[in-house]
Amino acid sequence: MARGAVGIGLIGLGTIGTGVVKVLARNAHVIEQRLGIPLRLVRIADLETSRDRGVDLDGIKFDSDAEALIADPRVEIVIELIGGTGVARQLILSAIERGKHVVTANKALLAHHGGEIFDAASRRGVDVAFEASVGGGIPILRAIREGLVANRIESVRGIVNGTTNYVLCEMERNGEDQAVVVKRAQELGYAEADPSFDLDGIDAAHKLALLAAMAFGVQLTPKQIPTEGIRGLTPIDFDAAREFGFRIKLLAIARAHRDAQGGERIEARVQPTMLPERSMLAGVDGAMNAVAVTGDAVGPTLFYGAGAGEMPTASAVVSDLVELAREIRRGAARRVAPLSYLPEALHELPLVSQDEVFGRSYLRFTAQDRPGVLGRIAGVLGDHAIGIESVLQKGRHDTASVPVLMLTHPASEAAVRAALSRIDRMPDVTAPTRQIRIEEG
Amino acid sequence: MARGAVGIGLIGLGTIGTGVVKVLARNAHVIEQRLGIPLRLVRIADLETSRDRGVDLDGIKFDSDAEALIADPRVEIVIELIGGTGVARQLILSAIERGKHVVTANKALLAHHGGEIFDAASRRGVDVAFEASVGGGIPILRAIREGLVANRIESVRGIVNGTTNYVLCEMERNGEDQAVVVKRAQELGYAEADPSFDLDGIDAAHKLALLAAMAFGVQLTPKQIPTEGIRGLTPIDFDAAREFGFRIKLLAIARAHRDAQGGERIEARVQPTMLPERSMLAGVDGAMNAVAVTGDAVGPTLFYGAGAGEMPTASAVVSDLVELAREIRRGAARRVAPLSYLPEALHELPLVSQDEVFGRSYLRFTAQDRPGVLGRIAGVLGDHAIGIESVLQKGRHDTASVPVLMLTHPASEAAVRAALSRIDRMPDVTAPTRQIRIEEG
Repeated sequence: MARGAVGIGLIGLGTIGTGVVKVLARNAHVIEQRLGIPLRLVRIADLETSRDRGVDLDGIKFDSDAEALIADPRVEIVIELIGGTGVARQLILSAIERGKHVVTANKALLAHHGGEIFDAASRRGVDVAFEASVGGGIPILRAIREGLVANRIESVRGIVNGTTNYVLCEMERNGEDQAVVVKRAQELGYAEADPSFDLDGIDAAHKLALLAAMAFGVQLTPKQIPTEGIRGLTPIDFDAAREFGFRIKLLAIARAHRDAQGGERIEARVQPTMLPERSMLAGVDGAMNAVAVTGDAVGPTLFYGAGAGEMPTASAVVSDLVELAREIRRGAARRVAPLSYLPEALHELPLVSQDEVFGRSYLRFTAQDRPGVLGRIAGVLGDHAIGIESVLQKGRHDTASVPVLMLTHPASEAAVRAALSRIDRMPDVTAPTRQIRIEEG
Repeated sequence: MARGAVGIGLIGLGTIGTGVVKVLARNAHVIEQRLGIPLRLVRIADLETSRDRGVDLDGIKFDSDAEALIADPRVEIVIELIGGTGVARQLILSAIERGKHVVTANKALLAHHGGEIFDAASRRGVDVAFEASVGGGIPILRAIREGLVANRIESVRGIVNGTTNYVLCEMERNGEDQAVVVKRAQELGYAEADPSFDLDGIDAAHKLALLAAMAFGVQLTPKQIPTEGIRGLTPIDFDAAREFGFRIKLLAIARAHRDAQGGERIEARVQPTMLPERSMLAGVDGAMNAVAVTGDAVGPTLFYGAGAGEMPTASAVVSDLVELAREIRRGAARRVAPLSYLPEALHELPLVSQDEVFGRSYLRFTAQDRPGVLGRIAGVLGDHAIGIESVLQKGRHDTASVPVLMLTHPASEAAVRAALSRIDRMPDVTAPTRQIRIEEG
């Protein structure tokens, strides 16, 4: 194996970039014991060059000129950690154009412009690695691409946004309103000043687009993924979940529907979900992430760890650096197809309509506390062939409206929607019904 | 990428071998969409050639001559699935000698003769892949070797034996005696006719030797690992665990102890352990496996899945085939060091004495139901500076002896052992005290 160090350039010295500097410095020895050659961070570019990040940058050229970094002949791998889909896209394409390998954690960019970026990399014969873009430090993309390569993947279901999982766990634990918890999360640095990207499930949808590509070889845009965030969940829902034996998680779900004739369609959605409290996914607490992958041979698997944060994300970025450095020195880049499937094998697959999604639901009705209301609601559900597994109606409230909490038997989404549209027009019903789908196991 | 198929020879057509045949046939298309070339099973050797395994062997040469299989010029990768440390070792060394790459699931062989085998492979320039040897279908070895390569690993803790986990879960769930559950496990095919290898923790120790090598670059033999199986656990222990908020798991634990001067020692042991019931490891039910790995950058991670069985283990074997096939066609074998650390970086590290292990313990005393017994026991513990966190003494029994169940504050193993050796000699105490260590989180 060649002994020469591999030169790294880092664009973006924010939280994760600083983590990368720390990991490369602190763990240089153990990385070299495994890789055989040193990784050398030779250059950093960031618009903010004066702030002290508390890391030693001796011997590293540090300025604000990202294009000069890319052009620097010592730089063989460019790390992009500035985020966003504008400048980041330009810089990555520029790095590829110059024959540099790229490591990025930018899921939004890859979800929206992955096709363009992977095509450019393929033409130029360089690699684009992005383990850090989904699940933070969890090596989930490698697991799907290599560890489970022998499988037809049946489903991928992930808790892939730590902010929302933290909010859900706190609401569950303390019985607090979402606004209270979000405010605290912002103070603790777990949530952005504008938390929409997380709370509305957009970040999870970006990650699901990448997971679905790797699992099924299917190119999905985030827009094609029905996405529902966690707003509108109330302490009542968490109490009901506990009584019914569930926990509420924001899940990103992609599942193959295969018919006997070999036809394949993909179900994809991001939504709050009730999971049996003893399932592994339900046990994921706080800001942690986990992705459950089921393969036809391996059966159910789960990969768990910190989904964000300085050091966990840096762990993933540096794992990509090690892999690329190895291939560069062996003169053998492009070892594995970035999206698991060879570019020519990536394909379009029809999506399963949400109407066809089939399973149990939790329903929270808000109705006037009058005799016969439950009977009338049950009647409409019955009209749509939706059976009732369990009902909770807690003591009377001071207000005229009470929540009626229900677990249905398995039914299609189409049936549930049709029933709810009728129920929500009933005079007894004073607010739109909240539905949360149950994921079994 | 070269288009030619890669020829595979399979030695051992038992359960897992049959699974490999099935996966290669059933998933040939999707594997080729990812790898770009077909994997072709050209030859099988097994002493039993007449039994029908229910798989289509058309076009595959099948006889009992393993050496001829190894010598067959079409065979580029040899899969060894006969197990044991005798013939299997000879065949693997013979394959290496002939320049064939090897895939094996044989943890006993690698734990005892890994040095010899990896050395031979290194000299001959071939690969030995063994993902299936630990955690069945869970891609845990890849995860440590590549996904977490940027980390100094702090600990590896695994439920790596499905048979014992099944037995423990059934004892917990049904309050049954171990003998009853083991008998049922044997009838269901979850336990061998002679279950000692599983129940006594030997299989787990073999796997821990491999995990410790990959995590810390340290060469441990199974003999160096203090190993305690699950025999002697009684329904009382499971009841007490529940009351104290724990679940009992057989854990394989390897942990680095690092001092401020850069010194490093390794703690390694296999033993029944109480885990907080809400921890991810505690949630691993039935015959499933999981390995929790903590790295200095990534923090806690966990990898979960089926640890044994025909198809999950075949999933891991075929993932190794795909990786080797890719490297063979790129003319680039020996991409990654098999034990994560380069051979020259593998080292010896001092082991932490069991006496130094520090933490809380569960203690089950068996004492005569006489006034003052608890006080006398507590007095001895106090003499050894062992604090008591909690005591359970359930209603009186018909017999003269009663169990006294206790949770201690953190203490060294040396102190606990010294105290127990005194307590077990007390006239009130009628049977040896059972200790189970607590693993926090």
